[in-house]
Amino acid sequence: MSYPEKFQGIAVADHKDWKNPIKIDYEPKKFYDHDVDVEIDACGVCGSDIHCAAGHWGQKKLPLVVGHEIIGRVVRVGPKCHTGVKKGDRVGVGAQVYACLDCERCKSDYENYCPDFVTTYSQPYKDGYVSQGGYATHVRVHEHFVIPIPENIPTHLAAPLLCGGITVFSPLLNNGCGPNKKVGIVGIGGIGHMGLIFAKAMGAEVYAISRSSRKKKDALELGADHFIATKEDPEWYKKFSSTLDLVVVCASSLTDVNFDELVKVMRIPGRILSISVPDNSERLTLKPMELPGVLIGNSCLGSRKELLELLKLVSEKNLKIWVETLPISVKSVHEAFDRMDKGDVRYRFTFIDYDKEFKR
Amino acid sequence: MSYPEKFQGIAVADHKDWKNPIKIDYEPKKFYDHDVDVEIDACGVCGSDIHCAAGHWGQKKLPLVVGHEIIGRVVRVGPKCHTGVKKGDRVGVGAQVYACLDCERCKSDYENYCPDFVTTYSQPYKDGYVSQGGYATHVRVHEHFVIPIPENIPTHLAAPLLCGGITVFSPLLNNGCGPNKKVGIVGIGGIGHMGLIFAKAMGAEVYAISRSSRKKKDALELGADHFIATKEDPEWYKKFSSTLDLVVVCASSLTDVNFDELVKVMRIPGRILSISVPDNSERLTLKPMELPGVLIGNSCLGSRKELLELLKLVSEKNLKIWVETLPISVKSVHEAFDRMDKGDVRYRFTFIDYDKEFKR
Repeated sequence: MSYPEKFQGIAVADHKDWKNPIKIDYEPKKFYDHDVDVEIDACGVCGSDIHCAAGHWGQKKLPLVVGHEIIGRVVRVGPKCHTGVKKGDRVGVGAQVYACLDCERCKSDYENYCPDFVTTYSQPYKDGYVSQGGYATHVRVHEHFVIPIPENIPTHLAAPLLCGGITVFSPLLNNGCGPNKKVGIVGIGGIGHMGLIFAKAMGAEVYAISRSSRKKKDALELGADHFIATKEDPEWYKKFSSTLDLVVVCASSLTDVNFDELVKVMRIPGRILSISVPDNSERLTLKPMELPGVLIGNSCLGSRKELLELLKLVSEKNLKIWVETLPISVKSVHEAFDRMDKGDVRYRFTFIDYDKEFKR
Repeated sequence: MSYPEKFQGIAVADHKDWKNPIKIDYEPKKFYDHDVDVEIDACGVCGSDIHCAAGHWGQKKLPLVVGHEIIGRVVRVGPKCHTGVKKGDRVGVGAQVYACLDCERCKSDYENYCPDFVTTYSQPYKDGYVSQGGYATHVRVHEHFVIPIPENIPTHLAAPLLCGGITVFSPLLNNGCGPNKKVGIVGIGGIGHMGLIFAKAMGAEVYAISRSSRKKKDALELGADHFIATKEDPEWYKKFSSTLDLVVVCASSLTDVNFDELVKVMRIPGRILSISVPDNSERLTLKPMELPGVLIGNSCLGSRKELLELLKLVSEKNLKIWVETLPISVKSVHEAFDRMDKGDVRYRFTFIDYDKEFKR
């Protein structure tokens, strides 16, 4: 049996052996009136895929298909859909597949903070079905989370925007990134490299902040106006005292981020936004007396409205993020997981060639 | 010898016996060209006085005169003063007596975050002189920190505005408190009670958040529209889910404040500002994954500009904070310290009758 009764995907079967996934057939969730089926053409590899596969976020129901930077074509549209989505449209699906769309947060276009949030893979819906991601033939999802992709953005460059891209764009957009603002991006990896591109495109003066100068050349090419290697200059925060209006921390763990130093480089009233989703056990520990005048927060994904705005920016300014493509397969997922785990990617993987791997 | 060679004050002589101060004569700091001498008529008692006297903030150079909610009259004006301050003016001095007035923060009217900040008592100036506070005959201070007091604010009600008042007003002012905003004040004590009055006067819908309902009647009388007793209703944060735009935490310690619950009552993008200056050892520990969409910060005092704005508000709206007066004396300082330590004050002490205690 195959679609629409069954989807096929590449799944993590064991957290201990997470780098060796297997191919599985699985039942999709029930098709509701607002649902859309997307036949997948590409999917980015996000740090979350690694965290979740490796069990950093606890034991998940296995086997589990991860992947939440999905690009594909619409093959089925529920009878009550009203966003305008049509069969054949090229669309994206990010890291969220459900919100109530009725609460105060949803009604204020902050559905990414809805208490009923369901993430694209590994989380049970209200009906008990555990969501499955984009290393697969198809994804079935509420139309609100199906985003039209502008024509001039190539599929492999569009995919990483759906999670990594919006994750860094949302705090930039909501915290005043723009002309005459000095904006720091801490952590020049998959998400941080997009942060440099977007912040520059939004008109800010951009500071790339990394531990070593290993990525200096890349950062300047990506759009940074300044590069700071914090471990190579222990006095860096004194030199840049009261300089930045906004910092987005894109490090995958907060353990290595020195917030006491960061606070000192902020102008008042500066803002430090972290987008990290570290291990469950990790805590952000601050000295209240040394935090004055600066606001700290954690930003999580972005709304549909913000995603549309990001895609418009990328399309209009023809922005090019840096992506390495791999043909989807069990072997490629192994390779991507292994290299991501070692930090060996500049700066994002997208799986492509779905039509070669999966029977349609 | 007496003024201007010597000041007289009531000083803490021993952190271990902090509730039993002594009367001392001491040398004022050197008089610089921008300095002003103020003959003191009244001084509020701030939680900081207790923290500092009791040694919570470490060993201080003793004997130490505390007090930084000072009202008095100008008796001497330095030759280079240009703020318009004149002999005979009724003025206030708060918790800050120096800033460089030249750095980026000072030039942006955030001199309360200047790296060269000197606090009104217990901190050495650059020339080594350790600042002394307002339980004394006089205070000598840079004109920038000498604030004119509007005529219709009584002296005993003006004093607590200089530190406690501005401390809660500044985060309200800088974070959007006003009409159509729902604002929570956590901790209904000396500072929190002023927070209720100011937030209401600024036009917000005000939520008083306390542990028990002991202060409910007061809070409603002070201006709160709603009262929440968190310990009496463990589900409170569910009832008020996604409600507040801004919360100012006025608790003297953060240990008892449940930030995980507070985050849940915030609208997105809500802000939680703490004004606490707890023990040196205290840390604010947050779960990054449960903080999304909300900004957290620590606010410290306020600028001259903000103080002038607060005094204007209090004057124009004829706001009355709740103050108990005590005639300044060694005995009264003991009483105030002892009762503050027990939380037995509604809601602020001001020492008065300076002319009876001190020879002029």
